[in-house]
Amino acid sequence: MEIDEEYIDKVKGLIEQKDAENVKSLLIDLHPADIAELCNDLAPEEARFVYRLLDNETAADVLVEMDEDVRKEFLEILPSETIAKRFVDYMDTDDAVDLIRELDEDKQEEILSHIEDIEQAGDIVDLLKYDEDTAGGLMGTEMVTVNENWSMPECLKEMRLQAEKLDEIYYVYVIDDEDRLQGVFPLKKMITSPSVSKVKHVMKKDPISVHVDTSIDEVVQIIEKYDLVAVPVVDSIGRLVGQITVDDVMDEVREQSERDYQLASGLSQDVETDDNVMRQTSARLPWLLIGMLGGIGNSMILGNFDATFAAHPEMALYIPLIGGTGGNVGTQSSAIIVQGLANSSLDAKDTFKQIAKEAVVAVINATIISLLVYIYNFIRFGSTATVTYSVSISLFAVVMFASIFGTLVPMTLEKLKVDPAIATGPFISITNDIIGMMLYMGITVLLS
Amino acid sequence: MEIDEEYIDKVKGLIEQKDAENVKSLLIDLHPADIAELCNDLAPEEARFVYRLLDNETAADVLVEMDEDVRKEFLEILPSETIAKRFVDYMDTDDAVDLIRELDEDKQEEILSHIEDIEQAGDIVDLLKYDEDTAGGLMGTEMVTVNENWSMPECLKEMRLQAEKLDEIYYVYVIDDEDRLQGVFPLKKMITSPSVSKVKHVMKKDPISVHVDTSIDEVVQIIEKYDLVAVPVVDSIGRLVGQITVDDVMDEVREQSERDYQLASGLSQDVETDDNVMRQTSARLPWLLIGMLGGIGNSMILGNFDATFAAHPEMALYIPLIGGTGGNVGTQSSAIIVQGLANSSLDAKDTFKQIAKEAVVAVINATIISLLVYIYNFIRFGSTATVTYSVSISLFAVVMFASIFGTLVPMTLEKLKVDPAIATGPFISITNDIIGMMLYMGITVLLS
Repeated sequence: MEIDEEYIDKVKGLIEQKDAENVKSLLIDLHPADIAELCNDLAPEEARFVYRLLDNETAADVLVEMDEDVRKEFLEILPSETIAKRFVDYMDTDDAVDLIRELDEDKQEEILSHIEDIEQAGDIVDLLKYDEDTAGGLMGTEMVTVNENWSMPECLKEMRLQAEKLDEIYYVYVIDDEDRLQGVFPLKKMITSPSVSKVKHVMKKDPISVHVDTSIDEVVQIIEKYDLVAVPVVDSIGRLVGQITVDDVMDEVREQSERDYQLASGLSQDVETDDNVMRQTSARLPWLLIGMLGGIGNSMILGNFDATFAAHPEMALYIPLIGGTGGNVGTQSSAIIVQGLANSSLDAKDTFKQIAKEAVVAVINATIISLLVYIYNFIRFGSTATVTYSVSISLFAVVMFASIFGTLVPMTLEKLKVDPAIATGPFISITNDIIGMMLYMGITVLLS
Repeated sequence: MEIDEEYIDKVKGLIEQKDAENVKSLLIDLHPADIAELCNDLAPEEARFVYRLLDNETAADVLVEMDEDVRKEFLEILPSETIAKRFVDYMDTDDAVDLIRELDEDKQEEILSHIEDIEQAGDIVDLLKYDEDTAGGLMGTEMVTVNENWSMPECLKEMRLQAEKLDEIYYVYVIDDEDRLQGVFPLKKMITSPSVSKVKHVMKKDPISVHVDTSIDEVVQIIEKYDLVAVPVVDSIGRLVGQITVDDVMDEVREQSERDYQLASGLSQDVETDDNVMRQTSARLPWLLIGMLGGIGNSMILGNFDATFAAHPEMALYIPLIGGTGGNVGTQSSAIIVQGLANSSLDAKDTFKQIAKEAVVAVINATIISLLVYIYNFIRFGSTATVTYSVSISLFAVVMFASIFGTLVPMTLEKLKVDPAIATGPFISITNDIIGMMLYMGITVLLS
């Protein structure tokens, strides 16, 4: 089923005619994720018309799948009681927490007070306490748990009861009488194990688990490394408190990589092609203005070297080469570091080792580039011209500086617990452009 | 269990003493993914020592989890028969295909001829025919399938038999007598459904599936959108031929985003912080050399405007501003397009619409930047100086050009089925730098 423009226009037409019957019959065949995609493209008023036709279960699923900003707009005008009773009551706790986090505090309180299922409300209140960037902030409390001392028939009966309430079962967790996680029961075992012994003799012991305070980055790595579909979350005394599923982790991987990419490209906030002009401009203008200030700063620095330019007018011709090379080298170095830190192949403790290695790579690159440019300038201006030496020496210095600076800055930010990705892209190019000009002018003056 | 340097040194020490007993007792507690991580950090000779201590099942799992280049080096010296009988025979078909694809054709043939399980060998030969970037190239043939006409007891018995051979069950697929996919059986139903009726009355009909020729990007989107843990793959007449699991898809998401990020940062091949100096240099040098040629080209262009610089020496001061702004704007525009195309929120058909929108954003950014620079130059040089007008008009022109060019190039590449990500980063900055200088010089000459 393709949600194309034609389809959207058809739905819009039916909504305009208030033809609830036909809209409903169109929706009946759609997956909640498809209805959400449709709603993302409708006006809020039209989306509300669609919503009124959905049963509570589906409406909650659709809301979970909607774009964050469309959802926020959609929820803003709804009374808290409706949000609680029509949506939150039918959601998994992790999705409910995501939704409630988006709202302001007063509305959060109101919604929580209107949730009918007290157990769910309590779970949500507990989950809201965790930091958003930790396992506790990402986990949900819906899962199937069995006691290690149950017999297999008891266990199967209890699993059936619990499974009825869930959309999907990933693993069955085994706990002891103190709620501590003892094992995991891959579903496979459920169909293959003959139902005779106690659960504890059939389960897989020492399962891979994460702590509530484990960072999301680490959770992602664990799920990826061990090819899991879900990971159990335990508190500091080992009690099973929740589960993180692979679909949420995949969203994290996607969001994290898109964010790094945007930061590296000089976009200061999450922006998509279908965002409006206002949002597009405000995502781009900050770095353009900083770049502009950098450019003006550069013009002031260069303004102090009138005499140098007067004596060697050809010096001006190499400004783009020096600035551009510094930018390119710095971007490469910082990107390698940011990526290494993101996928944990690099540790902030290894700063010195990494800089030493980077320096070796830089010497090779710097030598090749400055030598080639030297040959070119030798042919163009001859060996006695100041520019012939000064450009190549400056290039060498700029490549060395940009490589080490591009390594040092993200490593330092990581140590200071600041996202190293902000150190890539425009920040690095602008800084290297300015330092490059200073080096170029300084070296030229020394050689003149 | 943390595989840190201390741990690795300990293992290295034991290997040196040829202490097989103690190495084995260390390995016994490790997950295959951890052993693989350990082997990535050992010398090939040491890794082979570890390998000899593993049972066939574990050895195959470890090999699947190893870094691609370490694995290649490791396999190169092994005879084909050993690879077939010790590893491939114990692997899932999708992993076996990944491994065999890395080797040269002669070795591929040899390995295939040594696989003992004829059915598996046949599956691998079939899978090797599919394009690597399609669902067929990513799928495996290991899955649990039941016939829609079976009764539930029959079905359970058959499932048990099939499940014994698998590491993990994701879904149970239901096929008709012609092998055509008819439904999916979420495992949840297996424990919740009373075992009375025929499979076809319990299954979920019309499951989400992909075609063997579906592109990997689309498979990733489908798994993400519908929050699946696996997706069945069908051929052109609807027969179930394989399954793609979420762990493989997650690897794809990670690889794809890392690749886009590296391209945007001017790295021409996959490179990690722990790669050697040679590889680091060869990943970086190509774009640095292209940037160098661009810089030399720029110096030639500027060299034609001696007279202009002589008349207005202050023109040189703004070269970094014009070049840098063009680079920043172009990088932003192209990044937004590349990301939109990657997550399918943008379609290459919408080129015209997107350029129109981009032009509006560009006019706003261009106006703000050139106005601010105008005010600055008005104060610095006064309203009559050529530079006051020429810099601001050039900035306006550069921002407009870079925005539209940064949109047009990736959209065109996408239409030509070339990866649009190559159009970001250094390509865009170098081009914009050159065009920026041409515009700047041209406009200055016109105004003089």
